[in-house]
Amino acid sequence: MSESVDPLVKITRVPERGAYDKESIYSTFDDGYLCHVAYESDHGPVVLPTLYGRHENFIYFHGSPAAGMFRRANSDVNISLVVTHVDGFVLARSLFHHSMNYRSVVVIGKAEKVEDPKEVMHGLEVITENCLPGRWDEARQPNDVELRQTTVFRLELTAASVKARTGAPGDDAEDIDLDIWAGVFPVVSGVGNPIPSPDFTAGTDLPSSLRTFRQIPEDA
Amino acid sequence: MSESVDPLVKITRVPERGAYDKESIYSTFDDGYLCHVAYESDHGPVVLPTLYGRHENFIYFHGSPAAGMFRRANSDVNISLVVTHVDGFVLARSLFHHSMNYRSVVVIGKAEKVEDPKEVMHGLEVITENCLPGRWDEARQPNDVELRQTTVFRLELTAASVKARTGAPGDDAEDIDLDIWAGVFPVVSGVGNPIPSPDFTAGTDLPSSLRTFRQIPEDA
Repeated sequence: MSESVDPLVKITRVPERGAYDKESIYSTFDDGYLCHVAYESDHGPVVLPTLYGRHENFIYFHGSPAAGMFRRANSDVNISLVVTHVDGFVLARSLFHHSMNYRSVVVIGKAEKVEDPKEVMHGLEVITENCLPGRWDEARQPNDVELRQTTVFRLELTAASVKARTGAPGDDAEDIDLDIWAGVFPVVSGVGNPIPSPDFTAGTDLPSSLRTFRQIPEDA
Repeated sequence: MSESVDPLVKITRVPERGAYDKESIYSTFDDGYLCHVAYESDHGPVVLPTLYGRHENFIYFHGSPAAGMFRRANSDVNISLVVTHVDGFVLARSLFHHSMNYRSVVVIGKAEKVEDPKEVMHGLEVITENCLPGRWDEARQPNDVELRQTTVFRLELTAASVKARTGAPGDDAEDIDLDIWAGVFPVVSGVGNPIPSPDFTAGTDLPSSLRTFRQIPEDA
């Protein structure tokens, strides 16, 4: 990916919030696990959520070969894939300057169905490890029957951009002295206490990989 | 919206996870504030995040008239708008049966630009109150100059569906006795401690509407 900006993903609205460097693109993907994919249908664009992982300059995502999204993704038409992190509610004195702090990364391109069985397994490992670090080696790995029910796609990060807002509200000067609270409510998320499966009767403790899995910081 | 299912939004993959009743559709929208909107461009579909609110059978969202998304949304081509709640990571013994607990609602239709100034204000109030209950009456309301910089769209919930997964992992019988932890990590999110704006020097306390705003439950 060159540093020149692909016009497909150029930030035109508030351009100073845009970034196109690999580090920004990779880190915004690596902080998330859920993306939204938009693909062409006979009735206009359709957008659906799915899980993903990144390896080098590729995003991997997977699904059932029966799902419409995946039948259509492997075509000559571009798809668009976005990951959005909500970092805070920005409360200004004026409603007009209310906003969100966020980071979002968008990539536009042609998804390729992964055909090589080794790369299929690699793609599934990339997705699993992105969502649940350490889980690939703990759980039972896919067998041939299961692999036939799974389609893996990859999308190269050729045309991608990040848009982000950070910091305090930007009220107009004439509003600063209004008697209205202004500031940011940071958004935090993570996991709560794990709920073992009702059919889980083995003595197995929670693996160490999961003991600190996406815990919410105490000082949040 | 009739109870007959519009084929545009019929759930074809794992159909027992689908719902089409107004109560499911409305409650899934009302639990969120961030949506992803996919719209047609000259280079295929593009998907972007934005805020929204629901009033009766309409979703309202807004933006700058200069943004490409909003220039294109007001056309004869359908857009697709989705809200996704991630409720939990589902960890099975087999990687194949790993999943997420989630609720997502998708609506497909033609966005209408709101032209009536009273409905523009109403739409902005609906969005604000959905994101920040009580804030519309606390903050300074939009003036004419600000309203000219704001475009409000509405999208009727004519073709909408909910897809959801809940509960424990669904391992295959032959995997149940494997010595692998299985269960659900619930995902929780909310806001942390508010950060007053650096230019906030008024004596105003946090308004009561914000004191319990999206707090994470203590027992999560």
